[in-house]
Amino acid sequence: MKALMTGAVAAVLLASTAVQAQMKPEEMVETRQAGYQFMSWNMGKIKAQVVDGKEPYDQAKVAAAANAIAAIANSGMGSLYSPDTTTEQLGKATRLKPEFFQNLDEAGQIGRNFTAAANQLAKVAAEGDQAAIKKAFGDVGGSCKSCHDKFRAD
Amino acid sequence: MKALMTGAVAAVLLASTAVQAQMKPEEMVETRQAGYQFMSWNMGKIKAQVVDGKEPYDQAKVAAAANAIAAIANSGMGSLYSPDTTTEQLGKATRLKPEFFQNLDEAGQIGRNFTAAANQLAKVAAEGDQAAIKKAFGDVGGSCKSCHDKFRAD
Repeated sequence: MKALMTGAVAAVLLASTAVQAQMKPEEMVETRQAGYQFMSWNMGKIKAQVVDGKEPYDQAKVAAAANAIAAIANSGMGSLYSPDTTTEQLGKATRLKPEFFQNLDEAGQIGRNFTAAANQLAKVAAEGDQAAIKKAFGDVGGSCKSCHDKFRAD
Repeated sequence: MKALMTGAVAAVLLASTAVQAQMKPEEMVETRQAGYQFMSWNMGKIKAQVVDGKEPYDQAKVAAAANAIAAIANSGMGSLYSPDTTTEQLGKATRLKPEFFQNLDEAGQIGRNFTAAANQLAKVAAEGDQAAIKKAFGDVGGSCKSCHDKFRAD
């Protein structure tokens, strides 16, 4: 594996080795799924208020939702990904394709794009311009999708 | 139920009615459990680095973990609690005792104490004083425990 890692991705994975060592593969999967589920709930609130207009716009709530997404994105979720936590080892307990670890440069770039998009969403949500929030929300969703399309099993 | 609600708790619950209406009870349970699981992971990182000394202290990581806890705490989790999401209706899918809804003033106060403690932890984690982080971490843990002792089934 190590020969495939380069630059920032290798640094992130190596830096997280100590914490990884304390978690079982199943715990890593459950924890990252919890993070994504909680982000999804908050994305749904922003969508309902700013994109679909199904809920009245409440700037404080949208900002709080965006903050939760950004803080989760910045919390070091990379340490919850190890090569023994894919569909290959865990079957239906996860949807992470083994290909993730054969394309770590791309996976790392997708992760950095996601974090940057989440930070931008939190920034514009704090400012309150709904058009900017809608744009930033779309960019976060796009970064989610780029990883799902590439590395998430159906 | 409404006669039992007062002040801020009632306001929070009523304000969240629209969002609640779109979620099934099981979804509310899963989403709040996801939030707590993700906070627990981040509490564990802070504990390992600042309390137990099992991991080397990394200020940026501790601050990121504390930010995730605080942002989740501030994301409006109260809207994930409705009276049809207790052990009475859902059995072992949840550990929320029905007593929560017979003691909404106390539950609300515990929730506000938790959010305040999480915000304080994020503040001192950003500053980097380990003694202050350790104290604030203990206060967050205590606020978690106060709710578990009162409203969480064994």
